[in-house]
Amino acid sequence: MSLLVVGSMAFDSVKTPFGEREGAIGGSATYFSVSASYFTEVRLVAIVGSDFPQSELDFLAERSVDLAGLERSEGETFKWKGEYGFDLNTARTLDTQLNVFQDFRPQVPDAFSESEYVFLANIDPELQASVVEQVKSPRLVACDTMNFWIEGKRDELVKTFGMVDMVVINEGEVRELAGESNVLKASRKIIEMGPSTLVVKQGEYGALLIQKDSVFSAPGLLLEDIYDPTGAGDTFAGGFMGYLSSEEDMSDASLRRAVIFGSVMASFNVESFSYDRLRVLTQTEIETRYRQFSDLASFDRI
Amino acid sequence: MSLLVVGSMAFDSVKTPFGEREGAIGGSATYFSVSASYFTEVRLVAIVGSDFPQSELDFLAERSVDLAGLERSEGETFKWKGEYGFDLNTARTLDTQLNVFQDFRPQVPDAFSESEYVFLANIDPELQASVVEQVKSPRLVACDTMNFWIEGKRDELVKTFGMVDMVVINEGEVRELAGESNVLKASRKIIEMGPSTLVVKQGEYGALLIQKDSVFSAPGLLLEDIYDPTGAGDTFAGGFMGYLSSEEDMSDASLRRAVIFGSVMASFNVESFSYDRLRVLTQTEIETRYRQFSDLASFDRI
Repeated sequence: MSLLVVGSMAFDSVKTPFGEREGAIGGSATYFSVSASYFTEVRLVAIVGSDFPQSELDFLAERSVDLAGLERSEGETFKWKGEYGFDLNTARTLDTQLNVFQDFRPQVPDAFSESEYVFLANIDPELQASVVEQVKSPRLVACDTMNFWIEGKRDELVKTFGMVDMVVINEGEVRELAGESNVLKASRKIIEMGPSTLVVKQGEYGALLIQKDSVFSAPGLLLEDIYDPTGAGDTFAGGFMGYLSSEEDMSDASLRRAVIFGSVMASFNVESFSYDRLRVLTQTEIETRYRQFSDLASFDRI
Repeated sequence: MSLLVVGSMAFDSVKTPFGEREGAIGGSATYFSVSASYFTEVRLVAIVGSDFPQSELDFLAERSVDLAGLERSEGETFKWKGEYGFDLNTARTLDTQLNVFQDFRPQVPDAFSESEYVFLANIDPELQASVVEQVKSPRLVACDTMNFWIEGKRDELVKTFGMVDMVVINEGEVRELAGESNVLKASRKIIEMGPSTLVVKQGEYGALLIQKDSVFSAPGLLLEDIYDPTGAGDTFAGGFMGYLSSEEDMSDASLRRAVIFGSVMASFNVESFSYDRLRVLTQTEIETRYRQFSDLASFDRI
């Protein structure tokens, strides 16, 4: 029932073919927390600068996100600027200002150290490992990463993967890390590094849940209007981990439902800039969209 | 119950990262016929040269493919040479020799003119239209095409699309023809051209079945060993149309099952060069793989 997330909080300036937004609230931990908050209470470990608006922190607190692990530092919050072309699967980074995030050394408060579910959003794999060392006997530790760490800190990343139960990453990153173009073979190579479960995000094509002897393929919802894919992966992870932690059921059927709830949350998130759409979701909307996924993918057994 | 296919028969020389094969039997009508023959009797309209082996024609006849519409011409059979890189979704054409196929003017024999199900494989859209004019009141006419015709004979292609019920094409071709990157919007533009149903082949990601008010997403089976994707699309179409014509049921549920049977047949085909794998399939293997697709994609409704 207790879900801990460690990651970034940021200001994003994003341009897509459908519009642009300057200095919107972003960051992996932010997207994750808001998304997961529809399923469970969330414990946040992150860092913000003195320029981060109190109103946003109040919003998170109202959504039952526990901010006891939030470090407020003198200086500016992490800032990212990026652009998407018509291929909304890949962002082009125009500018990155790490600011206070550069010195982020995640401290898990004592009150959070017995968290049962832990998500390590995309940060330096050495910091991810340090978080694992700070939590006592979690039931499930999952982590994300990105090409930057695959290319720059491969050994550290492989070491972190050896410490976690689950990895939630993009299909391209699976191929890159494994050095193997076939996704199934590549996934099995990563499973050999330690995690028993791989969630492979395929952008508009959906997601795969891969374990040693089983594969689940979740469909991608066909949306007519995708405004901003920023945070889709973290929003997916939030729905996925939020659902799992609320159910306390790690069966294959439960993991599959969790992938669909993750997909549901991500599908809402891309409908607006920042997490505007996630702010105002209802349980009914979430359930209705889950059923849309069922209708999309169902066919008769024979 | 009567399924007519019009398309090419060819010799293919194919190189993939996993091997190569010179002068293997190929062609859209060939792949389609063999695949569909596992579901229903097939009527073939195509052209071969005097170099086409009688043993292959005997094989087709044994599989209940009616060759009354096969033209045997003096000269050489259509020859294609291509290569695939590690991205097995796209072939690079190295050489094309149309030979007798250049003068192909499909003649539908009288005995075939009342065929109820018709598949127009990828040939000149004007020839596709001429076939539609030769069949009397079919229940379902479906067609394929390729970028070559989208770019070179757009108007003729759009005219042909206005004459058919269903279009079975690749995702990239949907985007190119509609001039629209969003697949759902692009598909709706093509539906406005005439066909009520679009089957969008997404390579390793599966396939979509799109109608005015509904979408079905079929998963792609994750295969560890893909030897040769040549003919996968035609094999898909053969399973899809073969199943539909055997069932005589055009409900949404039946169309969805047909997409899965098409996917099943295509998944076998890519496991070998030419249609080696399709030659020796059993009904049990087909049903077992259908159930693999069910297991792959199923999750609880809520």
